[in-house]
Amino acid sequence: MSNESFIIGIDPGLTKTGWGVVKKSGDDIKYIECGVIKTESSDSMENRLTFIYNSVLNLISRFNPLGVAMEQVFVNLNPGSSQKLIMARTASFLAIAKSGYVVKEYTPNEIKKNITGLGHSSKDQIYVMVQKILNSDIRKDNISVTLDSIDALAVAVCHAFSL
Amino acid sequence: MSNESFIIGIDPGLTKTGWGVVKKSGDDIKYIECGVIKTESSDSMENRLTFIYNSVLNLISRFNPLGVAMEQVFVNLNPGSSQKLIMARTASFLAIAKSGYVVKEYTPNEIKKNITGLGHSSKDQIYVMVQKILNSDIRKDNISVTLDSIDALAVAVCHAFSL
Repeated sequence: MSNESFIIGIDPGLTKTGWGVVKKSGDDIKYIECGVIKTESSDSMENRLTFIYNSVLNLISRFNPLGVAMEQVFVNLNPGSSQKLIMARTASFLAIAKSGYVVKEYTPNEIKKNITGLGHSSKDQIYVMVQKILNSDIRKDNISVTLDSIDALAVAVCHAFSL
Repeated sequence: MSNESFIIGIDPGLTKTGWGVVKKSGDDIKYIECGVIKTESSDSMENRLTFIYNSVLNLISRFNPLGVAMEQVFVNLNPGSSQKLIMARTASFLAIAKSGYVVKEYTPNEIKKNITGLGHSSKDQIYVMVQKILNSDIRKDNISVTLDSIDALAVAVCHAFSL
């Protein structure tokens, strides 16, 4: 294993699956890339899940990371939307598992606590801290950097801290 | 398309995924094969889901069926077991979708009604009717024919009726 390793974070969702890649070099964590896997609600569930699965598979094969982490999702009060979210999450989960990785999961509060030191930080606080930790020029007006990919980068940073 | 076509039914579950294959020849429906994809609760979720996914993928590639149908599952009152069931179901769903099929789903009541004419039949009634429809020697003491695979055969028969 090299001293420099990629770590991928994933924030699963059916419409938007955020992903973020960081590079851990010793104690340093660098921003590499991030993005969002988008699917259209007008498309079939078959196509949407297959697209998420294929995209995560390609992402992992592109970076050959040391580890892959996901934000853990919970069943909420709406059974229909919960089921769709779990299905989307499982598509990412299976792609990670099929690539030979253990799926490391963190709860939203674990991620927030690891990133900002507080369990109930706002999205903006997370954004500022992720930017600070990665010491990068991630900008809100960068079209590929949406809040979904910031969440995914936060998962990646959280996992990098724990390694 | 030939006049004879295989149809696969799947009864999804994390510990046991039942599957059944029937052959539709005109108006006749014949029993071909059935079985259960089993995973151990002591194994990791990564391995269990990958095994279900690979097994369903192999099953479809082996029979090259006209259609694949699944029993629809619902979120119940226990969020933990629901989540596991949805994940197992998604592993089968993705394998069907990746094979290029639309996933045809039937509710338990639709299946029961199609098979026995009643929406709330017992497992035993389903068993007797599936056996009768398939006019086969499926036996309860056949080690590969468990209730899970009878349920899967019922899905396959239900789908064969609807084609």
